Amino acid sequence: MQTPWEYRYAHRIQKMGSSVIRELLKLTEQPDVISFAGGLPAPEVFPLKEFREACNYVLDHFGPQALQYSSTEGYKPLREMIARHTVRYAVEIEAENILITSGSQQALDFIGRLFINRGDYVVVESPTYLGALQAWNAYGAQYIPVRADENGMIVDELEAALRIGPKFIYILPNFQNPSGSTLSLDRRKKLVELADKYGVPIIEDDPYGQLRYEGEHIPSVVSLDSEYRGPNGGHYSGNVIYLSTFSKLLAPGLRLAWVIAPPEVIHKLVMTKQAADLHTSSFNQYVAYEVGKGGFLDEHVKVIRATYKERRDVMIEMMEEMFPPEVTWTRPLGGMFLWGRLPEEMDAAEVLKRALKEKVAFVPGEAFHPRGGGNNTMRLNFSYSTPETIRAGITRLSTTLKELIKEKV
Amino acid sequence: MQTPWEYRYAHRIQKMGSSVIRELLKLTEQPDVISFAGGLPAPEVFPLKEFREACNYVLDHFGPQALQYSSTEGYKPLREMIARHTVRYAVEIEAENILITSGSQQALDFIGRLFINRGDYVVVESPTYLGALQAWNAYGAQYIPVRADENGMIVDELEAALRIGPKFIYILPNFQNPSGSTLSLDRRKKLVELADKYGVPIIEDDPYGQLRYEGEHIPSVVSLDSEYRGPNGGHYSGNVIYLSTFSKLLAPGLRLAWVIAPPEVIHKLVMTKQAADLHTSSFNQYVAYEVGKGGFLDEHVKVIRATYKERRDVMIEMMEEMFPPEVTWTRPLGGMFLWGRLPEEMDAAEVLKRALKEKVAFVPGEAFHPRGGGNNTMRLNFSYSTPETIRAGITRLSTTLKELIKEKV
Repeated sequence: MQTPWEYRYAHRIQKMGSSVIRELLKLTEQPDVISFAGGLPAPEVFPLKEFREACNYVLDHFGPQALQYSSTEGYKPLREMIARHTVRYAVEIEAENILITSGSQQALDFIGRLFINRGDYVVVESPTYLGALQAWNAYGAQYIPVRADENGMIVDELEAALRIGPKFIYILPNFQNPSGSTLSLDRRKKLVELADKYGVPIIEDDPYGQLRYEGEHIPSVVSLDSEYRGPNGGHYSGNVIYLSTFSKLLAPGLRLAWVIAPPEVIHKLVMTKQAADLHTSSFNQYVAYEVGKGGFLDEHVKVIRATYKERRDVMIEMMEEMFPPEVTWTRPLGGMFLWGRLPEEMDAAEVLKRALKEKVAFVPGEAFHPRGGGNNTMRLNFSYSTPETIRAGITRLSTTLKELIKEKV
Repeated sequence: MQTPWEYRYAHRIQKMGSSVIRELLKLTEQPDVISFAGGLPAPEVFPLKEFREACNYVLDHFGPQALQYSSTEGYKPLREMIARHTVRYAVEIEAENILITSGSQQALDFIGRLFINRGDYVVVESPTYLGALQAWNAYGAQYIPVRADENGMIVDELEAALRIGPKFIYILPNFQNPSGSTLSLDRRKKLVELADKYGVPIIEDDPYGQLRYEGEHIPSVVSLDSEYRGPNGGHYSGNVIYLSTFSKLLAPGLRLAWVIAPPEVIHKLVMTKQAADLHTSSFNQYVAYEVGKGGFLDEHVKVIRATYKERRDVMIEMMEEMFPPEVTWTRPLGGMFLWGRLPEEMDAAEVLKRALKEKVAFVPGEAFHPRGGGNNTMRLNFSYSTPETIRAGITRLSTTLKELIKEKV
């Protein structure tokens, strides 16, 4: 008589909540649904030719090393390339400030493992990124949401949250997932000062920083923190852990991202990674380096920007033209998402149910609110669908919205 | 004034022990050291031509999908291929019994996360695989070592361990890392019965099962468990979680492995993986499928067997010829390691220190003993070095051993 497995689990998993992202990814797999739900890059911008050349080059020149076990920190030329890139657009660092991870989700998981004891508080924007909540729920995190508007977290409300004694502040300053908002320079500076005042570190998650379609680049939080502390001799040792990824610049199927942090934090993360998966695929690191080196990333990001800007503009134009006046939305300056707001009394989950009958999908905003609320909000992705599909999808969605609003009145 | 990072950690990491594997991998990186320390496959057997063809085929035919986000469970054709392969040589299963992981280390980590609460007991062989101890130390596991001889775990001593109430039994039945021993059929049957009697599941870690150089294949523990329970309609739902990997059959740099378990356990592991890294590289899964399909794995494993058998034989011949008579060793029937035993009063760590001066390395056996002991044992890898290098390395090592034994007398 076999003991039921249920009685054997450590019951960390129950606390992970439902697999919202996963269930949503399943929706996008139905071929006749136009999905604004996922957070997928456009496959049209994957540099297939460059990948093909890089794979051949790597196998011809570095086959035995690229297919072998390698160091936990990551492939050194790749880390040096990321360091050079980061020095130019974000903050002065060296390769020893960098750990390569298997996607940013792994970095979020490791941060949970490194910092969160059951019951610890984490300050987040409200709404915030669902994947971070999923990662940290497993470690028993509790959340202190701070309200956000079109200029990001309302930093004036942060101090009260910091007085509760959180383990860290989690923030997506550029074209936030899900809201599309961007944290203003003034607020970034205030954030750095307040975090320092209360001795609370900042996790800056920046997957979209380079996907800006209008306006001027705003310095990263990590660079403002670095300035705040003065010259560091090229080696960052401040109060911010910065995350970014190749998922949006090259391709998510590689599972390649990186953490930038003070060397002592990198050292702890390396030990964590060693026990968790030894290292990230050596082959993928070699290939990403070959694709990315020699300035390709700078050229390629222009293609991505042009493609996504067009898609964002088409989506917004269509919404302006077709959506009922009761629905409002943000106009993100970059990234992959915009954020819609329905009349207070409407439930976006109900809208989704009806929208699926019309074969169009989005993510109801509630899931991004760690303490509930946001039932009348919705996240729409504009990067994945072609302009034509966006037109068709927004047409379908506006039909659904008009019907539902009519029924309510 | 920045708060020191030290005060912010959740202090899971301190419990992970020292980074023994990692420090050892560093030794192997010194180009003039002949290293029998690592657990690396021979780069000469990596199928570079087939990888090159597969990369090109995947990018030409499935580029957009292979570079995109994908499902957490893993690429379905790859899971189906593994299922067909497993049905032939191990146990009747279906794709729903399989989760693709980023190396077996990730499977070990997830098993720790799923089953181990701080202080829980785990039964292991003594000695056992260091990577498993590193994974589970992070969850606060305690170990109950059961002695092993050349026929693997002494199962007669298992019952006393099971009465302590462990969370699971961890076993490497084939050509064990580190000892090279293989669990006999009688002991496997007894293991399955005892595990069932006490309601304790078994983790069967089988990275080397197909790397047998002599003798007959012994049925896997999972297949004996399956027989013990009777027909399952193709869908395994027994008491064993089985791990294997492409690291030894294709290449470790891909970071591709898999877990076979009852579907309800797979479901929990999928939720764990979703929070940990979303999914394993889609590209690598497509490439491994293209390389492996159509019977290539069966042909390729013959090449690996022939290569490693020669290396094992050369190492043993050299040891027979050159080692002082006070040193003994196992004669593994497969795998990548053999296990040496020095006179009781000798310390293998001291031998290593001296051996490094002669530019040859191995792993002192103490690290593989979770409750200490084994100071006079050593693990030698024979898969990585060419026969010529093995001859040179064993010559150097025998010089060291003879000197040290002479000094002791």
